[in-house]
Amino acid sequence: MRVILPEIKELLTSRKKKAIRKVVSYFEPADIAEVWSEFTLNEKLKLFNSLETALATDIFEFLSEDQMVELLANLPTSRTVQILNEMSPDDRTDLFAILPGEEVEKLIPLLEAEEQKRARELLAYKENTAGGLMTTDYITVPENVNIASVMQELRAKAKDIDFIHNIYVVDKVNRLQGIIPLKDLLTTSPHRKVERVMETYFPSVGLEIDQEEVARVFEKYDVASLPVMDKLRRIKGVITVDDVIDVIEEEASEDIHRFGATEVTEQYLSASPVNIAQKRVIWLVILALAGFVSGSVLEHYSYLLSSIVTLSFFIPILMNTSGSAGTQAATVVVRGLATGEIRLRDIWRVVRKEFFIGILMGIIAGAITALRAFVLQGDAMLGLTVAIAMITAIVIATSIGGMLPIIFKKLGVDPALMSGPLIATILDTTTLLIYFNITILLLYRFQ
Amino acid sequence: MRVILPEIKELLTSRKKKAIRKVVSYFEPADIAEVWSEFTLNEKLKLFNSLETALATDIFEFLSEDQMVELLANLPTSRTVQILNEMSPDDRTDLFAILPGEEVEKLIPLLEAEEQKRARELLAYKENTAGGLMTTDYITVPENVNIASVMQELRAKAKDIDFIHNIYVVDKVNRLQGIIPLKDLLTTSPHRKVERVMETYFPSVGLEIDQEEVARVFEKYDVASLPVMDKLRRIKGVITVDDVIDVIEEEASEDIHRFGATEVTEQYLSASPVNIAQKRVIWLVILALAGFVSGSVLEHYSYLLSSIVTLSFFIPILMNTSGSAGTQAATVVVRGLATGEIRLRDIWRVVRKEFFIGILMGIIAGAITALRAFVLQGDAMLGLTVAIAMITAIVIATSIGGMLPIIFKKLGVDPALMSGPLIATILDTTTLLIYFNITILLLYRFQ
Repeated sequence: MRVILPEIKELLTSRKKKAIRKVVSYFEPADIAEVWSEFTLNEKLKLFNSLETALATDIFEFLSEDQMVELLANLPTSRTVQILNEMSPDDRTDLFAILPGEEVEKLIPLLEAEEQKRARELLAYKENTAGGLMTTDYITVPENVNIASVMQELRAKAKDIDFIHNIYVVDKVNRLQGIIPLKDLLTTSPHRKVERVMETYFPSVGLEIDQEEVARVFEKYDVASLPVMDKLRRIKGVITVDDVIDVIEEEASEDIHRFGATEVTEQYLSASPVNIAQKRVIWLVILALAGFVSGSVLEHYSYLLSSIVTLSFFIPILMNTSGSAGTQAATVVVRGLATGEIRLRDIWRVVRKEFFIGILMGIIAGAITALRAFVLQGDAMLGLTVAIAMITAIVIATSIGGMLPIIFKKLGVDPALMSGPLIATILDTTTLLIYFNITILLLYRFQ
Repeated sequence: MRVILPEIKELLTSRKKKAIRKVVSYFEPADIAEVWSEFTLNEKLKLFNSLETALATDIFEFLSEDQMVELLANLPTSRTVQILNEMSPDDRTDLFAILPGEEVEKLIPLLEAEEQKRARELLAYKENTAGGLMTTDYITVPENVNIASVMQELRAKAKDIDFIHNIYVVDKVNRLQGIIPLKDLLTTSPHRKVERVMETYFPSVGLEIDQEEVARVFEKYDVASLPVMDKLRRIKGVITVDDVIDVIEEEASEDIHRFGATEVTEQYLSASPVNIAQKRVIWLVILALAGFVSGSVLEHYSYLLSSIVTLSFFIPILMNTSGSAGTQAATVVVRGLATGEIRLRDIWRVVRKEFFIGILMGIIAGAITALRAFVLQGDAMLGLTVAIAMITAIVIATSIGGMLPIIFKKLGVDPALMSGPLIATILDTTTLLIYFNITILLLYRFQ
């Protein structure tokens, strides 16, 4: 695509609509959307006005939020309305969600009556739920018709619907009774009744189910689409797998960022440093303030440090290793909670497991540190002190690192907020306390 | 499902095959697989032998690797062969990949001739490539037939194929010429020629494309399946979106774990602590050894610490804050590299951006720390020293944190291996060096 950009730009300076259409038809809408930022606003508008509404809308749906908003602000209202009428209802709802409320209220009355109704209905659902993800583009048929009439219905509607995997069979009050996979339609005699052909056991989700849960259902059943039902089991919409992929990527990004003590920045490369710093600095200040606590611990025990200066040499390695061990445990648990492998009730199993893991790793890390103390400082007692401090610190680190994310989740807070840096900061304090107290017990009194 | 487990177990003690089949038919295969571990081995075998091969295979495909291996070890060979013949070729290949080579070599000759060929072909591709992900279950038609004969072909084969989204149109040497979406088949006159109906521009992937790249293509084009072609553009297989969802989850898990300085443990809850500790301890030892460097820096400057004891109170907060700032930057870059937003050539843009972010955050964190030094220690010069050290340390932290993952990727190493704890450990040393040198410049000489 990128290689022929100059030719397209050239064409856009002319007014050859036909030639423009022809070149664009060689590409997927997603390809055009990918190079969108290479066009000037003028070129974008010309390109957009040269294309048929269906194709223009296909491209529009692949643009980023900023790019959509820019286009809407510059297109004539009549063209905007054409595009909005043509858009798939779920994508349109996502777009409305980012526009100012008063603008949406101006746009909706301009839509076709049918689309107005759909738009208002979908806008009523929360963005991160099944209702917010679903589209109202799907095909329902009554139970008592035969396959031939389903095919007829399908032929009438298929053109306007992007994805069709199943036909949904409903009773008189729109309650979902069964599904017929599209490929089964093709292999069934046209005379058979729908109710004899349909599958009556099939996965579905409720309107208010969280999108993360929806993604889990898709993963579990390996399906390409899922019907969404209200509490009375009436079908309200369909979620297709392409939207779920976006959800999975989005949730993974959110988890990774939070666990790294920052927030997702859309379009990092083009965002301003001030903007990005704002998202991070809150976390950094919290961590700095939490760091004061370990500073105070150091201050409190400073008499130890001034009488045994070598003690301070081991502070970085102790803090570091316990912080890392805690981060490791928290990583596994945060991810396990996200994928559903670890549940709230597993908390004691996790803590017990992490306790033993901590002992095993602590012995190894402790032995290495003791060896260093013995070789470089030539002080066996110092070596013993450091080793015992290391083992204790790591056991506490893995146990706390495994426990805190689960407690966060229990409290209804995103477990990923118990980030690596936060765990490390909390553990700094406990590690110092352990170190100094073991020093007092073993080393200081014999000094 | 879980609620009627006792009834199913009860049924399994009897020999009522029909009743068992009936109860199981009320559930999705994925639901049965979900409670699989609740059955004893005997119950598993009885259940499995009561079901028809097609359903047994559906359930089998949803089991975990361990559960599949357990069943295979205990089923009579004849049943194993039935299942293997029935499995979808891509799932079967994944299974073969975890079995010992000699067992696979014993099993393949027992398959039907057609399946043997497919199995050998798929096993030749690397697991993490498009070739390793694809299935050979798909439908091709020649260019010059009409839609009616495509429908005929479809009716003949649809039953054996899990997902059909497109029909693939090929020339005489099997080169892919176009695709026809299933729903278009339904809305097209049976007399039209395939070559007039097919879409000739469509996304596809090459056999050796990495699975992460395959996932990106699915996301970009919002498709439900993609054809896989060899270098001569001959169609070799089809990848369906359900497998891609698994890839996306897998890659996200891998990134999160590596970034947390550990490796993915399948089934954490049932793995032994020794096993898990083995995966983590290597990292911990590397980090501990790296921590010795910062210990040596402390040792080298210990004369400063013993003459100005208050200096040590600020070591934890400096190390902590710079480590966190570096982790934040690395998080964003590691994720950006994974999603494709940040590319190798963006390295200087990233570093420049992170440099400015570092200055902004450094000023704020520095001011807070200076304030603490001034209020609690009543020492303005100490406050200034700490503040300047903090700003410098954070600027270096964000710049290095943003740069190292890109350098790792340039070197062909997974950028997520530049984990949060590793960045923090590296930064400990630079932070201490900065701190002590600024102390010598500003504070020590005036002491």
